[in-house]
Amino acid sequence: MVVRAAVAGASGYAGGELLRLLLAHPDVEIGALTAHSNAGQALGPLQPHLRPLADRVLEPTTAEALAGHDVVFLALPHGQSAAVAERLGDEVLVVDMGADFRLKDAGDWEKFYGSQHAGTWPYGLPELPGGRDALAGSRRIAVPGCYPTAVSLALFPAYGAGIAEPEAVIVAASGTSGAGKAAKPHLLGSEVMGNMTPYGVGGGHRHTPEMIQNLSAAAGEPVTVSFTPTLAPMPRGILATCSAKAKPGVSTGSLRAVYAKAFADEPFVDLLPEGQWPATASVYGSNAVQVQVAYDEAAGRIVVVAAIDNLAKGTAGGALQSMNIALGLPEDTGLSTIGVAP
Amino acid sequence: MVVRAAVAGASGYAGGELLRLLLAHPDVEIGALTAHSNAGQALGPLQPHLRPLADRVLEPTTAEALAGHDVVFLALPHGQSAAVAERLGDEVLVVDMGADFRLKDAGDWEKFYGSQHAGTWPYGLPELPGGRDALAGSRRIAVPGCYPTAVSLALFPAYGAGIAEPEAVIVAASGTSGAGKAAKPHLLGSEVMGNMTPYGVGGGHRHTPEMIQNLSAAAGEPVTVSFTPTLAPMPRGILATCSAKAKPGVSTGSLRAVYAKAFADEPFVDLLPEGQWPATASVYGSNAVQVQVAYDEAAGRIVVVAAIDNLAKGTAGGALQSMNIALGLPEDTGLSTIGVAP
Amino acid sequence: MVVRAAVAGASGYAGGELLRLLLAHPDVEIGALTAHSNAGQALGPLQPHLRPLADRVLEPTTAEALAGHDVVFLALPHGQSAAVAERLGDEVLVVDMGADFRLKDAGDWEKFYGSQHAGTWPYGLPELPGGRDALAGSRRIAVPGCYPTAVSLALFPAYGAGIAEPEAVIVAASGTSGAGKAAKPHLLGSEVMGNMTPYGVGGGHRHTPEMIQNLSAAAGEPVTVSFTPTLAPMPRGILATCSAKAKPGVSTGSLRAVYAKAFADEPFVDLLPEGQWPATASVYGSNAVQVQVAYDEAAGRIVVVAAIDNLAKGTAGGALQSMNIALGLPEDTGLSTIGVAP
Amino acid sequence: MVVRAAVAGASGYAGGELLRLLLAHPDVEIGALTAHSNAGQALGPLQPHLRPLADRVLEPTTAEALAGHDVVFLALPHGQSAAVAERLGDEVLVVDMGADFRLKDAGDWEKFYGSQHAGTWPYGLPELPGGRDALAGSRRIAVPGCYPTAVSLALFPAYGAGIAEPEAVIVAASGTSGAGKAAKPHLLGSEVMGNMTPYGVGGGHRHTPEMIQNLSAAAGEPVTVSFTPTLAPMPRGILATCSAKAKPGVSTGSLRAVYAKAFADEPFVDLLPEGQWPATASVYGSNAVQVQVAYDEAAGRIVVVAAIDNLAKGTAGGALQSMNIALGLPEDTGLSTIGVAP
Repeated sequence: MVVRAAVAGASGYAGGELLRLLLAHPDVEIGALTAHSNAGQALGPLQPHLRPLADRVLEPTTAEALAGHDVVFLALPHGQSAAVAERLGDEVLVVDMGADFRLKDAGDWEKFYGSQHAGTWPYGLPELPGGRDALAGSRRIAVPGCYPTAVSLALFPAYGAGIAEPEAVIVAASGTSGAGKAAKPHLLGSEVMGNMTPYGVGGGHRHTPEMIQNLSAAAGEPVTVSFTPTLAPMPRGILATCSAKAKPGVSTGSLRAVYAKAFADEPFVDLLPEGQWPATASVYGSNAVQVQVAYDEAAGRIVVVAAIDNLAKGTAGGALQSMNIALGLPEDTGLSTIGVAP
Repeated sequence: MVVRAAVAGASGYAGGELLRLLLAHPDVEIGALTAHSNAGQALGPLQPHLRPLADRVLEPTTAEALAGHDVVFLALPHGQSAAVAERLGDEVLVVDMGADFRLKDAGDWEKFYGSQHAGTWPYGLPELPGGRDALAGSRRIAVPGCYPTAVSLALFPAYGAGIAEPEAVIVAASGTSGAGKAAKPHLLGSEVMGNMTPYGVGGGHRHTPEMIQNLSAAAGEPVTVSFTPTLAPMPRGILATCSAKAKPGVSTGSLRAVYAKAFADEPFVDLLPEGQWPATASVYGSNAVQVQVAYDEAAGRIVVVAAIDNLAKGTAGGALQSMNIALGLPEDTGLSTIGVAP
Repeated sequence: MVVRAAVAGASGYAGGELLRLLLAHPDVEIGALTAHSNAGQALGPLQPHLRPLADRVLEPTTAEALAGHDVVFLALPHGQSAAVAERLGDEVLVVDMGADFRLKDAGDWEKFYGSQHAGTWPYGLPELPGGRDALAGSRRIAVPGCYPTAVSLALFPAYGAGIAEPEAVIVAASGTSGAGKAAKPHLLGSEVMGNMTPYGVGGGHRHTPEMIQNLSAAAGEPVTVSFTPTLAPMPRGILATCSAKAKPGVSTGSLRAVYAKAFADEPFVDLLPEGQWPATASVYGSNAVQVQVAYDEAAGRIVVVAAIDNLAKGTAGGALQSMNIALGLPEDTGLSTIGVAP
Repeated sequence: MVVRAAVAGASGYAGGELLRLLLAHPDVEIGALTAHSNAGQALGPLQPHLRPLADRVLEPTTAEALAGHDVVFLALPHGQSAAVAERLGDEVLVVDMGADFRLKDAGDWEKFYGSQHAGTWPYGLPELPGGRDALAGSRRIAVPGCYPTAVSLALFPAYGAGIAEPEAVIVAASGTSGAGKAAKPHLLGSEVMGNMTPYGVGGGHRHTPEMIQNLSAAAGEPVTVSFTPTLAPMPRGILATCSAKAKPGVSTGSLRAVYAKAFADEPFVDLLPEGQWPATASVYGSNAVQVQVAYDEAAGRIVVVAAIDNLAKGTAGGALQSMNIALGLPEDTGLSTIGVAP
């Protein structure tokens, strides 16, 4: 089987990471590469680490350029995927790495993104309950946001098991690639090195409704989320520290059992041995998720920490994992759980 | 007035930062410098940034070496301060930068430090209610821990004003100097760069009882604290993200008013203008504290973020500020609120 | 004596560092602050570390705004200083932190900067032979480039003593602030962290003719310079590794003697003890220069390594040091030799 | 074909990187893993990124533990390989990642390493003239040092073509993993972040004679090397800036032609297009080498810059590439030229 794949937005960080992974996927042949402002340029200077594609010239992002492939990956600014997707045939697998089709509630979309809701596609987080069923055979996939990937994996077992109160508090640190490649002063190396700073505090981050959607579905009741993202001085990685009050009767043992069961058969999620904590460096460049749990008896809270690579499992790796499922390929084809460390 | 100061533990990070600040203090004359394993060595290669002290030779840490000064700063491993302090006269100002005399509850000390409690000294966080009164004229000062400094300043106004429920959730990122200068594999540059990782999760960090002590005093009722510290890839800085459920009636405006009032006359604490967020880079090397608040209506939580330099305001700067108060000097003598950035 | 100082280009990195230093200068009162694209904005969000100036509003950079001060610092893009300077009176001390007035040879200027040469001002590197005489009482100062500061200090003693062949080879690493605050993709944190890369290889860097000018003057004969700058993953600092073939008769001892003599009375230059090597971290935020020398007998070369803070001694600190000399103030007023480390 | 491989020194950085690559090698089965001080421990906490090997327990490094494999990789401290190797049969492929068998001249070894020379093995840098012939079918391989890998690849074409004078000047920046995993104070994250510092200046670095050996062989005459290594604030990567005076008649065109020819058929070496410069980030985690050349006419020098990943092509990748050749496997089996960026 040869899967011909096109990538829209090939000059950005998400597109670049996807291409890195596609180059290692044994069943994929890389087709059209498109871009917006970089159209007409060779990929070499834009993605200097992707040596085998250095001479590829970027086409403008149009439905015509993307047509004729088995899979089309969209790594476009929010709000631009729908117009492209509707011109690609229903038989084409369209994987949207943007936010457009993640939310089920049109009101949430409008409140956080300020435009009309485009719809809802099957959600590309296979580890969630029913996640793989929704993806199998699908021809449309909404890849989760990077923060919601880490946070949902950290907390859905607790909510699914009914052991956590429906008020989650999350503080997460992200590497700078999560903010994209557009040159903005606050993302300069001079600004971010040696610096930790929060943003979107108080409920304003666009990933918040996506987390609420996932956690509420797991809990079977509305879950509120207090989410504070912070920018960390590293290129990649998300470390999400998630907690919620424990419902009565929780113990370290029962908490651990819940998580051991939830991830027992997951190829990419590691519940770490007791005493070892997730580290973003350990999942650098890999599709792995490291999770650890603790029950803080004095505070009465369940604390779950998850580490992912925001570009890999958090974006491009998650997209590829979902593509594998949709196409009936082994789920881990072309995906590694081994990080590049130190 | 000339204050003769001795520093025990001069070869470590806390001692080095203290010396950097003392060199800029117009009223202080630096006397004996002592160390343990580095005794007998010149300071130059150990603290290469402290050029004017390069030829100073470190003496072994003994009460004899420290005697005869107006102020003695102790930057010793936990549990070692009492033995030294009791041999220094009551007229000598002893400033303990270790943990020994911070906690009021002997049981807390024994639980978290595993040794006998040495006692409780006036607490060197002047910004707390009654903080300055406790320090004025005192001849013993317990310098707060770096995390408790950030967290207590972030949350005491909310608890003092009775607008927060007594269950605080805190996630903080610290630069690596907070872990000291002892060479341990997990602190190697190869390990920490590009890496975020938590430690002491689930209530185990020794700074937790100190936070509980401060916040409970402010609240007038017992406050529980869920504290997760994380190690960030930067040499200095603490970013503490602190939240608690709001009591009924809180609004963004009332929250902001509480904090504006609490810090109105504080020389080192900045409540940032709305829209601007604390950044550890902005307080690099300075005694300033940046604070910002948000009320997350959907989650019903007060979120407060504070940034400090863990070595400056979080340790040596706080020590010096308290010394100034104890000696009757202007509180900001020798202390800057201007960070070294970018 | 109160020196009223204006700063043109106050929102950039050079301007920000100058303001940080001016705030600590006991004789300076900060007057007008101007900017180009940021005119009309408050300084607070642009330079969040400069707390005492947070409410200052930036004026557009015009001669009118800058008039009426004792000193005017120009931190403008290359080629813009002359037009401003000629409208400021001869009695005003104008300190140009740009390149416009550094070069003596109009042809060099035109070749490397592509515009008409504006002239030559007294050169703000007091440590060079005759440097202080040229600055004393002057009302125009050309502040050296950051790389030429480090390189000239590293090599002028060898050339002045006639012990080095006139072909210098220099490889220098610079922190990212040397590239300024304009947002460019290759300066994003995601790009620079974990990355070393050269630029301007093969003689193309604009600082090359300035180095040639200084070293040739010291040598009394034309010196060629092979200069390779590299971008290092740190906000500040320059580490310059400089070498030249030794003339016959050089030994480690004679080399060391030459350097010891050259820097014996210099307040800001440290020839390190044998066995200790310059480190940019040791001069972080300070006006100090660390220098170390070695004679590589097998290769027959003199190797000199210098470390400076590119924004401090390399730009704003050097500017202030020269201002002090020009105004007859003690040369080290407001300048520290103590770095902020770790 | 299944190649059973043992790794001695599996808990260090070189060993860990080798295991990361071996896990992706389709023909290799990982056998015994040994260590010295970490013997008896599971690999999981020591190499947390190597998830599939987490439960492997490290054996003590003995010939017995290493016996019975097709290939034995030695990642041992200098001077320890010979004793192990001589007890492994001649039919076993022994790949020494240490320095013991790199040098041909016993005097050089004794001078730089201070012990008796163990001998000389075929040298694992296939790109050198005759390099592959020496490795094909060999059962002993000496893997080059990381710096010599970068420097030799950068300069052998110029020396081989007779266009460079035999006096090379090299300044290289290395990531901290090159200094190993032993916890030393100067390698702490607090020390290395934000810091550039040289070491082994003036000819003292142990990699110098290895460079001289390679470059002299290429030149057919003795080449002197002035080598200054610097420690850069990044976990991985070497950027080597290498130059030599050009012999008469060199031009940019002829220089470029020499390099284009030298690397025309090399699977891992990229002579970058004009205008693009090597970046360590672009080869992060890959076996690729980026090279760029410039002819500085004013200085009369050839400048060559090379970027490698010190742990990959500089150590473990080079070892694997050489193993492939020795065993008759396709040279690039299990090795990628695609970096993990940003």
